Amino acid sequence: MAKEITWTRNAAGRMVPSAINGKPVIPYQGVGKYAPTGHKHGPPIPSCRDYPPDGDKRVASLKEALVKAGLRDGMTLSTHHHFRNGDYLANMIFDIAHELGVKDLRWFPSASFPCHEHLIPYLEDGTIHHIEGSMNGPLGRFASEGKMKGTGVLRSHGGRYQAVQDGEVHIDIAVIGAACADPFGNANGLYGPSATGLLGFALADSQYADKVIVVTDNMVPFPCVPWQIQGNYVDYTVEVDKLGDPEKIISGTTRITRSPDRLYLAELTARFCEVTGIIHEGFSFQTGAGGTSLAVGEYFREIMKEKGIKARFARGGSNKYLVSMLEEGLVEYILDGQTFDLEGVRSMAENPNHVWTSPFTSYNYHGKGNFAGMVDVVILGATEVDVQFNANVVTHSDGYLLHGIGGWQNCLFSKTVILPIPLFRDRIPVVVDEVTTLCGPGELIDVIVTERGIAINPRRKDLIEKVKGSDLPVKSIEQLKEEAEKICGKPRKAAFTDKVIAAIKWVDGTVIDVVRQVRKDEG
Amino acid sequence: MAKEITWTRNAAGRMVPSAINGKPVIPYQGVGKYAPTGHKHGPPIPSCRDYPPDGDKRVASLKEALVKAGLRDGMTLSTHHHFRNGDYLANMIFDIAHELGVKDLRWFPSASFPCHEHLIPYLEDGTIHHIEGSMNGPLGRFASEGKMKGTGVLRSHGGRYQAVQDGEVHIDIAVIGAACADPFGNANGLYGPSATGLLGFALADSQYADKVIVVTDNMVPFPCVPWQIQGNYVDYTVEVDKLGDPEKIISGTTRITRSPDRLYLAELTARFCEVTGIIHEGFSFQTGAGGTSLAVGEYFREIMKEKGIKARFARGGSNKYLVSMLEEGLVEYILDGQTFDLEGVRSMAENPNHVWTSPFTSYNYHGKGNFAGMVDVVILGATEVDVQFNANVVTHSDGYLLHGIGGWQNCLFSKTVILPIPLFRDRIPVVVDEVTTLCGPGELIDVIVTERGIAINPRRKDLIEKVKGSDLPVKSIEQLKEEAEKICGKPRKAAFTDKVIAAIKWVDGTVIDVVRQVRKDEG
Repeated sequence: MAKEITWTRNAAGRMVPSAINGKPVIPYQGVGKYAPTGHKHGPPIPSCRDYPPDGDKRVASLKEALVKAGLRDGMTLSTHHHFRNGDYLANMIFDIAHELGVKDLRWFPSASFPCHEHLIPYLEDGTIHHIEGSMNGPLGRFASEGKMKGTGVLRSHGGRYQAVQDGEVHIDIAVIGAACADPFGNANGLYGPSATGLLGFALADSQYADKVIVVTDNMVPFPCVPWQIQGNYVDYTVEVDKLGDPEKIISGTTRITRSPDRLYLAELTARFCEVTGIIHEGFSFQTGAGGTSLAVGEYFREIMKEKGIKARFARGGSNKYLVSMLEEGLVEYILDGQTFDLEGVRSMAENPNHVWTSPFTSYNYHGKGNFAGMVDVVILGATEVDVQFNANVVTHSDGYLLHGIGGWQNCLFSKTVILPIPLFRDRIPVVVDEVTTLCGPGELIDVIVTERGIAINPRRKDLIEKVKGSDLPVKSIEQLKEEAEKICGKPRKAAFTDKVIAAIKWVDGTVIDVVRQVRKDEG
Repeated sequence: MAKEITWTRNAAGRMVPSAINGKPVIPYQGVGKYAPTGHKHGPPIPSCRDYPPDGDKRVASLKEALVKAGLRDGMTLSTHHHFRNGDYLANMIFDIAHELGVKDLRWFPSASFPCHEHLIPYLEDGTIHHIEGSMNGPLGRFASEGKMKGTGVLRSHGGRYQAVQDGEVHIDIAVIGAACADPFGNANGLYGPSATGLLGFALADSQYADKVIVVTDNMVPFPCVPWQIQGNYVDYTVEVDKLGDPEKIISGTTRITRSPDRLYLAELTARFCEVTGIIHEGFSFQTGAGGTSLAVGEYFREIMKEKGIKARFARGGSNKYLVSMLEEGLVEYILDGQTFDLEGVRSMAENPNHVWTSPFTSYNYHGKGNFAGMVDVVILGATEVDVQFNANVVTHSDGYLLHGIGGWQNCLFSKTVILPIPLFRDRIPVVVDEVTTLCGPGELIDVIVTERGIAINPRRKDLIEKVKGSDLPVKSIEQLKEEAEKICGKPRKAAFTDKVIAAIKWVDGTVIDVVRQVRKDEG
């Protein structure tokens, strides 16, 4: 711990420190280069002798559960983000921790949202030492201003599973909020006022944490079916009035973009997939729930219908558009990681071909394969892309850390990765010389689609060949960058202090980049 | 290994050796007395870098898969018994091992059947050193005659999961036969000529083995849904012509006993449950698929219909009778561990309330609880019961080890355990002074139902109270024993040599008893 921090240039050319939060860092070594050693984490062996014979693990309150679970200074507490910006639970947990005077906690959420701004006083008073997990919005800004005691660690969904599985992050207490649960701890996200569809982001926590608490606002008699979380991993169950704000947990409806620019990006992306034959009988795709992505899906639908093509599967996040493709028979299976609207929840509850997945099945790089690599095409976003096709999803060009990684890094292993992005946002170029923060290495990013043209990664000679003779506006990435600069001027680099405020993990647990404190007095 | 074997009297009064197959033995300490220490087994951390990016893990043959998995002398190979007496796969595996000249293998099946008599030459020539798992029929007889090189170890279904999870048994290569699988290794038992319903007995193997091979005679394109076995645990996939003989894998139909004696036992058991209020609104039960058990289920149905009672859940093995109760609405859920007939398979594939479970959810004693303890009443069999209510399920009174433990020990944790058994079989008493082999401690066995009367364990004062004033033929267990002896004479004890041929594990991994070689020249 007291050792001098040294710096190494990792395989992506980024400087990374020898330790973060007192733990040694393995620098990123390149895609597929790092070979893990050792064994998966083995949690303590429990015994039925220590659990109620009738399976009823209910305790009176979340506070009682946390106390029974042995909450104390320095522990790691994990939560999941299925409740998104409607979550009440994480705030309740740290209110209790604060009330109990517990300090120096590591919060290990699968992601945090603006609703967790409530926790800033606890970051200030030392209840929470630091956050390991995506920090969307205010908490990211707080960290970027250098105010968090420890250093943030950002992982992809798959990387989070990997870290827990590999024993890199040891969870003392996992708190899992579930729309539906039984007193034994079997739980799902399908039924009840706080329905989230599924609970995959809490899977690793349930399997590997020392103590697991399931909290629900919809307790049903055993058995709670399906058990997305298995009660056999659960220590305590708790009933609360409300887990969150249903309006903010899940959208009543998802909406396709109406912006003509973004619709054009979507159309161009879909046409690219048509021309290159990526859309073919039995293909698979993952789009996502952003406005542009949804629109890509709709253009896919049109092309598929016109050509009589069916997809073998689509990876979610699911939404009403994808569900209607399943129900129309255009897609045989949805392999879903999260439901973005109530139609997604309904479909998952009703339709056996709408399958709930997890970061283990879909994204864990330290598995014997995962689903991401089997997807023919994935449509992703980015805050910045550079001329090496490297991309950034966590910081803005002003240097603020405002987004999480989500499944983004994991999806880069799909057969073709396409980023439909505007050439500039608010007159700041998106295609740049060098990304502020490196989240995804360019060798995994195949195509950039902008409103002013499509750039294909020179590595993908097959795709370059396939678009020859088409009317697609293919350009080099350098051309795109120059066009952006012509319009917006050369972008000014964000200014940072030396202080590292967050590490960006690659999917294999190595550190691909770090984020520094924003220098506010500049500019 | 070279240490002198010493002997200890365990908490059940049985003498157990200090080591078996060179591994130290923990003597049985009483129900709920042994507290495990240490951590669950952590298998080696794999990486996607070492698996095909497109998820296609197919290799040309089972032999190639075994060679790639590193098959060599002294390894532990696991299989499961979902194919029951129709299994071809275990025989194929050891044919290959023999062909390759590999020696001293430990075979770790979840159970073996008469069809595996084929393997006796491999037990003789040293290909297989010993079997850890139930030995039904010929292999048990072989062991009982002292012919197996090592010592057999018998575990319950839950105990097998526990042993693998706890690292007590390290599986080098698991071979999982699946009715349906995809090239990635996702697999289920639901669809195809070798349908078994589910694959729960192979779950621990998939999760904890170093190498996992999935073999199928029905390969489908990714995704194979549902994935009862997750491809993310699988190293290689193999297609074969036939996994087994469908006629023997699963019964086209299960049949209720027609024996008037056994029907009477069943009726008496059901009436006992009626009189004592065990059959009540929202109750739960597990009967099983033997002729008598099936008949108990049918009597339950009559009582439930008459009284307008519904069960919250029934634990399987499922069969057409139980399925019809589910479909009639008499049972809300079937929590199924194995399907005994094609109606069970059909229902599991179609009905989301017919849920596939595993030894982890239902039986693992080293979990944070399990389902067995939540069941109101379980109906089980036994080869012998003694006046302390101790019971035997593995040996016959002649001393031969001819049966496995199955889920029997695990089910003893249900709220009420009833054993409907004939007072004697072939003029040999079933109720005896002391069981030949102790499999289940009397304190967990509540009621013995025989054709000559019902004995209630004196510990169950509540049940004794409830039957007062009823016309049920309640007697003491000693009375039952005396009646048996009056008819059959005092039974002669089986004669054994000193050689231990098998250990009987308790659900917590301790040794509750051992089985010795039968002395053949006696008698």
